[in-house]
Amino acid sequence: MVGVLGGCGPASTPADPRAQILRLDGEWSQAAEARDADRVVSYWADDAVVYPPGSPPVAGKAAIREYVVKSFQTPGFGISWKTTDVKVSESGDLAYATGTNRVTFNNPDGTQGTLEGKAVTVWRRGRDGAWKCVVDIWNDVSPPPPRS
Amino acid sequence: MVGVLGGCGPASTPADPRAQILRLDGEWSQAAEARDADRVVSYWADDAVVYPPGSPPVAGKAAIREYVVKSFQTPGFGISWKTTDVKVSESGDLAYATGTNRVTFNNPDGTQGTLEGKAVTVWRRGRDGAWKCVVDIWNDVSPPPPRS
Repeated sequence: MVGVLGGCGPASTPADPRAQILRLDGEWSQAAEARDADRVVSYWADDAVVYPPGSPPVAGKAAIREYVVKSFQTPGFGISWKTTDVKVSESGDLAYATGTNRVTFNNPDGTQGTLEGKAVTVWRRGRDGAWKCVVDIWNDVSPPPPRS
Repeated sequence: MVGVLGGCGPASTPADPRAQILRLDGEWSQAAEARDADRVVSYWADDAVVYPPGSPPVAGKAAIREYVVKSFQTPGFGISWKTTDVKVSESGDLAYATGTNRVTFNNPDGTQGTLEGKAVTVWRRGRDGAWKCVVDIWNDVSPPPPRS
């Protein structure tokens, strides 16, 4: 819409969507490492759905905020991720990204556990030109250790 | 491209992409329930990546075929799914879908186990107009039972 209404000035030429999403995603992971719930939540769209392993879907920003705040309050919890690949639709309104993540947590015996994961996100470009994450899902790279 | 080259005949007016993907996805799950590996594999693009829980990514059709054949050979294994929501890019070349799935397996004690899951797929429309799945990821709705 900016292009149609605004001619060919800089505002009508958004940066490469792939680079934009990679930049946003890097900032987003940094916000998560800093445990900054407000900033973390800002990268999701209002109608986003998060699909955490071992939990029902978390739908909408209010529920997602609650999920994030609770996670950050969990002793030993930490998360970071790295998106490696982004593909954008021809119309530049939809994209998906894949990458890896790492979750840390406290084991019952007090030691720190780490789960290596793989992640898929879907991104939508809003009318304001801003990319937001609308779908967020991940799972573990390794099976759980055998029961003793 | 069909539209550009072929004028406004029926071939230039592809069916509603959302309905197309829902139909394909239903057929795909039926093929999986029938344990028909060739048909199941045909719904993925050649460069698709599958992200099964507890496993590294499975990238490309040859690896995916091997993964599917092995799964179908596992005694007690079964899978079915139901896609409930599809969103398509304005350009009609990219879409994502969300839904639920159910995996059955044999427990070590011989009883049948069932895992309820949630799934996200990304679909790409090829130059031939056919939609193929390019990304396929899922995880469990419930956490694993506590260790005894």
